[in-house]
Amino acid sequence: MPEAASAAATKAAVGDSEFDRDTALTLREPGVYDIDLSAGWTIINAVNGGYLLAVLGRALGDALPHRDPFTVSAHYLTASRPGPAVVRTELVRGGRTLSTGQASLFQYDEEGREVERIRVLASYGDLDALPDDVRTTAVPPAFPPMDRCFGPQDTASDVRLPSGGAPVDGSSAIADRLMIKLDPATLGWALGAPSGKGEMRAWFGLADGRDADPLSLLLAVDALPPTAFEIGLSGWVPTVELTVHIRTRPAPGPLRVSITTRNLAGGFLEEDAEVWDSEDRLVAQSRQLARVRLG
Amino acid sequence: MPEAASAAATKAAVGDSEFDRDTALTLREPGVYDIDLSAGWTIINAVNGGYLLAVLGRALGDALPHRDPFTVSAHYLTASRPGPAVVRTELVRGGRTLSTGQASLFQYDEEGREVERIRVLASYGDLDALPDDVRTTAVPPAFPPMDRCFGPQDTASDVRLPSGGAPVDGSSAIADRLMIKLDPATLGWALGAPSGKGEMRAWFGLADGRDADPLSLLLAVDALPPTAFEIGLSGWVPTVELTVHIRTRPAPGPLRVSITTRNLAGGFLEEDAEVWDSEDRLVAQSRQLARVRLG
Repeated sequence: MPEAASAAATKAAVGDSEFDRDTALTLREPGVYDIDLSAGWTIINAVNGGYLLAVLGRALGDALPHRDPFTVSAHYLTASRPGPAVVRTELVRGGRTLSTGQASLFQYDEEGREVERIRVLASYGDLDALPDDVRTTAVPPAFPPMDRCFGPQDTASDVRLPSGGAPVDGSSAIADRLMIKLDPATLGWALGAPSGKGEMRAWFGLADGRDADPLSLLLAVDALPPTAFEIGLSGWVPTVELTVHIRTRPAPGPLRVSITTRNLAGGFLEEDAEVWDSEDRLVAQSRQLARVRLG
Repeated sequence: MPEAASAAATKAAVGDSEFDRDTALTLREPGVYDIDLSAGWTIINAVNGGYLLAVLGRALGDALPHRDPFTVSAHYLTASRPGPAVVRTELVRGGRTLSTGQASLFQYDEEGREVERIRVLASYGDLDALPDDVRTTAVPPAFPPMDRCFGPQDTASDVRLPSGGAPVDGSSAIADRLMIKLDPATLGWALGAPSGKGEMRAWFGLADGRDADPLSLLLAVDALPPTAFEIGLSGWVPTVELTVHIRTRPAPGPLRVSITTRNLAGGFLEEDAEVWDSEDRLVAQSRQLARVRLG
């Protein structure tokens, strides 16, 4: 029985899970929060960008008049490391149905000076106040059943994933925190035979079984192996900018995350992510611009 | 002969065109610029969001160590009006190949206090320094030839477009500044028979024939009639957030802009734009989150 499934048998609750504990902030003064970035969400030595976005998103949800992220735009400046950080927020404009805010995450250099890691602009609202009208024409991508997909903990006959989908060998603690089951159609890279298509698809959840919420959607859009692997590239693909739209509150149960890249050019690529919930609703859309650093 | 075509016969040069004059900034002090927002880029009374993005983009290109916008994320706060405005920029981080900056555009209330209209985070670089590798799998959308498409100045037998694609009757000065020729397949709304598909496609240029550059691409992604019209909605579709990636410097000649909406839900929709140049290169990708205000 895979670890993720056994963990899910004693499912963690929203508010009392690894993800909640590791994104918890301590209020230093109004709008300013301290946090110790957990080593549990790293790929090699770098803290995962989606986890960082959830930390910033949580700070803004506390600081702004509205609670739920509707659209969050993050520009990644320098690589974050596990350890102390401070999040500084600013209310840019408070409106009746939407509030706009800004937040930055800083860490400290050897002299204790603040070094900015990420800056975010975001508009927040109340997802529960939205009308129920849905006229989407988007349909969920075809996914094989979860038991025919593969995670980092699985060792099938031919498939042996690098831990956490890390682009190079090394310990990736985040693999223990996530339930990721990759569609075999996007696993060619792990077999040395990338498809050449810029696609990555996976069932997604938290390893301790905590259900999804808007904050964990901020993590979900940046937690899969890079599409670049299936295009046949290895090495790091650091995010320059990532924007997420949260469109509705996700239903309980595993998510499906589908990422596509259509334009790899000039050393950059975009990754478009769609996140679908267990009720077949498109709960989040994101796009990031990333650099291709050839390995 | 349509106006746009006759204007193009005496083509305006980059740097000496309506667009260049109307985005020109006066340096007040380092990083701070004054501008008189032109009434020439309005839809009804509101200044077009793409024109405003170009103004902010031009300020950042002047203030930052790098010249070309790579990714620009804008959150729209309050509606801009023609008249005086100030753009305040900040260098967030200067790197070797990318610089990140922030900019805000303010106008003035009755007491002369600054009111913030838009805030932008952006990463800039040098498009000419990018390698030539292109491994895109994206292909240009099918477009009819320009002479089979329709602009606001055209009056075909059945097609009579509202001026500038304005969502309600009224003067839209921007229509005189743009060369927009809409694909008849996305023109059902103008005939009272919207297709129900969230699609809008048009040939795009500046009416005075000025060629495209990275700044005018910031305008191009937000200048077509809203896809909501073809979904069968009328009324305003104000932008909450718009992010643009500029992927390469556009070749001379008209652009093709294709916009799609897949998810209209809860009173919001996304608009994804692709801009293709005359050499069939995908020069820009954008996504915006907009509100649907039923008319």
